Amino acid sequence: MIADCAVYEEGQRRAGDLPLEEACEASQKDGAFVWLGVIAPSAEEFDAIAREFDLHELAVEDAIKAHQRPKVELYGETLLVVLKSARYVDSEEVIETGEILLFVNPAFIISVRHGEASALAAVRKRVEERGDLLRSGPAAVLYAILDRVVDDYEAAAQGVEDDIQEVEQQVFSPERINPAERIYKLEREVLDFHRAVAPLAQAVDQLARGHFQLIPAALHEYLRDVHDHLLRVSSRITGFRDLLTSALHATLTQVSVRQNEDMRKITAWVAILAVPTMMAGIYGMNFKYMPELGWKFGYPAALGVILVVCALLYRRFKRAGWL
Amino acid sequence: MIADCAVYEEGQRRAGDLPLEEACEASQKDGAFVWLGVIAPSAEEFDAIAREFDLHELAVEDAIKAHQRPKVELYGETLLVVLKSARYVDSEEVIETGEILLFVNPAFIISVRHGEASALAAVRKRVEERGDLLRSGPAAVLYAILDRVVDDYEAAAQGVEDDIQEVEQQVFSPERINPAERIYKLEREVLDFHRAVAPLAQAVDQLARGHFQLIPAALHEYLRDVHDHLLRVSSRITGFRDLLTSALHATLTQVSVRQNEDMRKITAWVAILAVPTMMAGIYGMNFKYMPELGWKFGYPAALGVILVVCALLYRRFKRAGWL
Amino acid sequence: MIADCAVYEEGQRRAGDLPLEEACEASQKDGAFVWLGVIAPSAEEFDAIAREFDLHELAVEDAIKAHQRPKVELYGETLLVVLKSARYVDSEEVIETGEILLFVNPAFIISVRHGEASALAAVRKRVEERGDLLRSGPAAVLYAILDRVVDDYEAAAQGVEDDIQEVEQQVFSPERINPAERIYKLEREVLDFHRAVAPLAQAVDQLARGHFQLIPAALHEYLRDVHDHLLRVSSRITGFRDLLTSALHATLTQVSVRQNEDMRKITAWVAILAVPTMMAGIYGMNFKYMPELGWKFGYPAALGVILVVCALLYRRFKRAGWL
Amino acid sequence: MIADCAVYEEGQRRAGDLPLEEACEASQKDGAFVWLGVIAPSAEEFDAIAREFDLHELAVEDAIKAHQRPKVELYGETLLVVLKSARYVDSEEVIETGEILLFVNPAFIISVRHGEASALAAVRKRVEERGDLLRSGPAAVLYAILDRVVDDYEAAAQGVEDDIQEVEQQVFSPERINPAERIYKLEREVLDFHRAVAPLAQAVDQLARGHFQLIPAALHEYLRDVHDHLLRVSSRITGFRDLLTSALHATLTQVSVRQNEDMRKITAWVAILAVPTMMAGIYGMNFKYMPELGWKFGYPAALGVILVVCALLYRRFKRAGWL
Amino acid sequence: MIADCAVYEEGQRRAGDLPLEEACEASQKDGAFVWLGVIAPSAEEFDAIAREFDLHELAVEDAIKAHQRPKVELYGETLLVVLKSARYVDSEEVIETGEILLFVNPAFIISVRHGEASALAAVRKRVEERGDLLRSGPAAVLYAILDRVVDDYEAAAQGVEDDIQEVEQQVFSPERINPAERIYKLEREVLDFHRAVAPLAQAVDQLARGHFQLIPAALHEYLRDVHDHLLRVSSRITGFRDLLTSALHATLTQVSVRQNEDMRKITAWVAILAVPTMMAGIYGMNFKYMPELGWKFGYPAALGVILVVCALLYRRFKRAGWL
Repeated sequence: MIADCAVYEEGQRRAGDLPLEEACEASQKDGAFVWLGVIAPSAEEFDAIAREFDLHELAVEDAIKAHQRPKVELYGETLLVVLKSARYVDSEEVIETGEILLFVNPAFIISVRHGEASALAAVRKRVEERGDLLRSGPAAVLYAILDRVVDDYEAAAQGVEDDIQEVEQQVFSPERINPAERIYKLEREVLDFHRAVAPLAQAVDQLARGHFQLIPAALHEYLRDVHDHLLRVSSRITGFRDLLTSALHATLTQVSVRQNEDMRKITAWVAILAVPTMMAGIYGMNFKYMPELGWKFGYPAALGVILVVCALLYRRFKRAGWL
Repeated sequence: MIADCAVYEEGQRRAGDLPLEEACEASQKDGAFVWLGVIAPSAEEFDAIAREFDLHELAVEDAIKAHQRPKVELYGETLLVVLKSARYVDSEEVIETGEILLFVNPAFIISVRHGEASALAAVRKRVEERGDLLRSGPAAVLYAILDRVVDDYEAAAQGVEDDIQEVEQQVFSPERINPAERIYKLEREVLDFHRAVAPLAQAVDQLARGHFQLIPAALHEYLRDVHDHLLRVSSRITGFRDLLTSALHATLTQVSVRQNEDMRKITAWVAILAVPTMMAGIYGMNFKYMPELGWKFGYPAALGVILVVCALLYRRFKRAGWL
Repeated sequence: MIADCAVYEEGQRRAGDLPLEEACEASQKDGAFVWLGVIAPSAEEFDAIAREFDLHELAVEDAIKAHQRPKVELYGETLLVVLKSARYVDSEEVIETGEILLFVNPAFIISVRHGEASALAAVRKRVEERGDLLRSGPAAVLYAILDRVVDDYEAAAQGVEDDIQEVEQQVFSPERINPAERIYKLEREVLDFHRAVAPLAQAVDQLARGHFQLIPAALHEYLRDVHDHLLRVSSRITGFRDLLTSALHATLTQVSVRQNEDMRKITAWVAILAVPTMMAGIYGMNFKYMPELGWKFGYPAALGVILVVCALLYRRFKRAGWL
Repeated sequence: MIADCAVYEEGQRRAGDLPLEEACEASQKDGAFVWLGVIAPSAEEFDAIAREFDLHELAVEDAIKAHQRPKVELYGETLLVVLKSARYVDSEEVIETGEILLFVNPAFIISVRHGEASALAAVRKRVEERGDLLRSGPAAVLYAILDRVVDDYEAAAQGVEDDIQEVEQQVFSPERINPAERIYKLEREVLDFHRAVAPLAQAVDQLARGHFQLIPAALHEYLRDVHDHLLRVSSRITGFRDLLTSALHATLTQVSVRQNEDMRKITAWVAILAVPTMMAGIYGMNFKYMPELGWKFGYPAALGVILVVCALLYRRFKRAGWL
Repeated sequence: MIADCAVYEEGQRRAGDLPLEEACEASQKDGAFVWLGVIAPSAEEFDAIAREFDLHELAVEDAIKAHQRPKVELYGETLLVVLKSARYVDSEEVIETGEILLFVNPAFIISVRHGEASALAAVRKRVEERGDLLRSGPAAVLYAILDRVVDDYEAAAQGVEDDIQEVEQQVFSPERINPAERIYKLEREVLDFHRAVAPLAQAVDQLARGHFQLIPAALHEYLRDVHDHLLRVSSRITGFRDLLTSALHATLTQVSVRQNEDMRKITAWVAILAVPTMMAGIYGMNFKYMPELGWKFGYPAALGVILVVCALLYRRFKRAGWL
């Protein structure tokens, strides 16, 4: 589906939507370029676009299948940038990833979006307000999209961090919650997230260092800024993995400690209960000559002794912290 | 066994199968090349081929023994590419690996296949439909085979991923399944898989960067695409290892948690059973003066008290989540 | 908030505080430079400064938001150095991090501090005493601040080390303390600390190797010294992580050992208590012909036997180390 | 001890053994070289050789002490290659390592062997059959020895792999074997093995890349083949370590699972035994009015009830998988 | 404290000790150099030396504080080499580290030692016996000291290895020793040791590769030898860490296995004791009609049955390996 298709000239959007062919033609003009936004295109839809803009066979395949690794690649004059977009769905503790492919050329930028995350309409609006950047051509749009996607990474990372803090509290809470499954699932999400973010850093570094003529020098500092944010997110995510591994180990320790506490509590009670059973057994013996049995207050005395011994035991266990 | 031997000219297969000597001769013609497909050759079979095509002694050894590490190596003018093929046998949760050796030269490509995975007949059919690629010479066949093998990696990786998801469910299922052995065996498979895939990425990178004259520039982008897929598979496999390690740790935690639960349940019942034993013991004492023993309803009263105490204990344990 | 603003000429502070505009003007003079110290500026405050000193848009954003990764970056002629300051709050076992941004230029150095750690007033005092260094221009101030921040890292690392030693004692103490939570939290602090320190080492290395014209050669050795200290802190922190991981594993082992000891102690007592219960049970049987029951000293003999058996068991368990 | 000393000319061994001095002299002739094989020489023995062949002081020290790290080093014109030989002693599950030092020079090769593994007599015999290789001079002998040593590595690796598979079966076998010690010891062997193999790969790579004039180009492909085998062994060994670590974790999990099973089995029996004790206790109470006690079939009825309850419990536990 | 101060000329020590000033003067002569040995100098002591020999301010700070990271650094013409010395104190299982700083210059070498390890008097004696090396100037002394320090590393590593072998025996000994604390402490020592050794390897590599003019080519081979030893020690230490980590895991497994064994032993005895209690309970019931109670040999028969059942149970548990 084509979301939006506009021609930008001298940092301004030319009024009105254009059909594909006219846009392509308009983009040939000096100082003008087209931004074509496409969402989850079908093979036929994208074939038409590819033919119009003369895109490379392999790049087109990538655009439709959408399971690429983040990368920057030059096909002839056209740069293909593949990004993973990410957003944190707190209710399911899941990072939902999408994919954005950008075909960038002096004359056009085609953005192909798969998945919900990082809607580009907002980016377009923001970019159109900054004529100074737009004058740098399609690369400025590339920067704006990268900036947005990386900002969304940070939001997703924050979501994960909040959940990790919740999990930490569960691990060490006196309540008997078993956070193992939650920790494991967060670990899996973090792994996927890492796979989305880490390769992009390298790609953006190439863009920022001026490996591609397409990127005007004025944008290098902006892209370096994006690169920096990526490194920060990336190191946070690496930290998450270490934390979650430790949290899983700590959970195991906590479970063992609790088991030990339970065992001692249980045993203390068993010991307290064993005393009356034993004493009652002794006075249940059938010897003929057991003087206590004939005493008037033998029975209450026996009960009393039992109670006292149990109370002493109870106090002792209490003091030792077993109860 | 020679599976197929054909001469390609101007991107077209010349009709008919050829005996070895004629094929070799035909390949000397400009713009023509031979693709000789061999399956698990015996030493004698391959010796004949090696003599005909003048292959290096060491390369020949590799072709027969088939326990090579994936690599690209130049012997004189002939490129030797060693690949591991892989397929996932779901019924046994095993990745079956085979080996493919390719001798590539301007005049011929000899493919030697060991093991079931990645049959090359299908690749030949597909390649013969693409005259445009075939015109690039034997390197195009090399690309087509690499492409197929890496696609099969992705299928195998998907198979492993599915099984990992099954195992995850077992780890956290309330049923008492012990997935430790399954996790361990998947880990071993994943390790082997990694050893098959990781060195190839480096080799394909060399091919894509134009280190070898044999590979025409037109194919570089295609090989970069293969390299990219390899990196993706490779990072998925690395992720599998991390997941399986975590799953093993989580299993241990789950076992401990369950043991704790069992212990508490058991103890609760022991405690409930200990009360009647203790009370019966007391009324089994032989004191002369135990007024309760003479009461008319002493016995049912004692039973009643026992029942009430047991019921209270039961309720208490139930509430505490021990039962 | 502007903390201090002074002009330095020929290694001397020119008397009196200056308003912003005059300072900026004064800095244009040869051999003079301004050091402007700002603490947690608001957007408006810093906008004024940025306009006066012509700072880059992106750098300004960084200065106000203050969640940057440590780095060194050149915007035009102005070097932006981002640092994390750190101090150890022993009462909470927490490393409190702040952020310091430095804009360095031949004519000025602007220091922006967020957070409590590494107050710069003391640095200014110390720098003003060393006219020889000050003559090297703003880079000398940069060095002095870096030196101070890194010294504070060492202090923080020492604080962590002290706590790790306390935790070690808890892990192996005979008392039943569970240090798992404390270990985990130290691990998290150490991870954050590492993220603050590690990227700075690379940045300072660039400064020390003379990548930037702004840094006079005379300062290279001083910066190499700072770099060296950073590497030392960094390797200590890495060591902390390994130690804490081991400590967590050791804790688990200790818990298991203790559980084993408890279990054996408990069982020994259960066994000792089981003997009288069993013997009492036997003499509680109602057989008509049980000769012992008729003996005069049957009862005390039975008690005696019980005591002796229990004592023997006790001794045996004591010797086996179960009690 | 001097094992063998021979002069090779034009790829042929000159008949007869030679004393040291004559051999040295003979090696000066063009196209001729000496191969001197020494086994565990004493200091005096080797001093004589060193003086005759003019070996470097440091190299001589290495040759006698024999605890070197695998390496290739050039002392003047003479190349010193240090290798670890390895063989797997299955009966003790131990990798026995020896050491081979090679002094290679255009005129001679001196092989010094410590330890049993990789006897060189067989290598000499095989080399002498290949006149074509021998014509390349001492480097051909170097290749032949390397080839043999690395082949022995593969055999040793296979031995380890077989034992790992045995251990795996023990870990997951229903029998109660504790393979922890065996796993640990294999881990130690694998670590030592890795230390023997890993540095050699780098050294052989240098030889294969033509860093040393001594190695004729014709041998580069052969050495690359050795390097390849080394990489394969090396990656297998790395895999062993990962497997053994996982096996140790899996062992712990298996022990925990078994403990859980034992505990449940035990408890089930305790519960079944507790029922008759409790019921007997109740009918052992001395209440005057207990109607059941007067019944004619009270006793068999009580026994029956006890049996039935026990049987029901037994069935229930059986079904729940506790027995 | 100045330990020794001597002038060396033409590889010979000039007779007699010299005061500082004369030594400095004497060193100016061609072919002569001073070796000044200082032990743990106070600030004043070292200030005098620094002034005499014109040492860099930063280097002086390092010399007094003595908490440097191993490194090689050039201050003007003077090379500063920082080393950690190490010795193993077996009685406390601790690696005691000291620090040695060397200021090397064509005219002098100043050695500053902190801590007990690696006394340099012995090195001086050995060096003075080798006039051939001494002729190479101060660099020869540098080599001799490095050689000694690294030899001491090997001794310390051997000490650690011996203790690790002791610990291994404890882990798998049938006695109930808990080596967790010992393992942990060894791990900490090994970490510290690694931090002392690892950075030095890189520094010595620089020296051996001829990065510094000060080191004559004749010494490069000697320094390469030192570097090699360092790599060997370094890889042994890395191996120690892996071994100790595995040992800690193995300890946990052993504890679990033992707990399992204890539990089964305990339960077996509980089961054996439960049988007489249950049977006695049954014959303690007060039913009027219990024919066995009236039998003449009822009591001994009951005792006999109890004994037989207990014996059968005992045999069964014995066979199952529970006792």
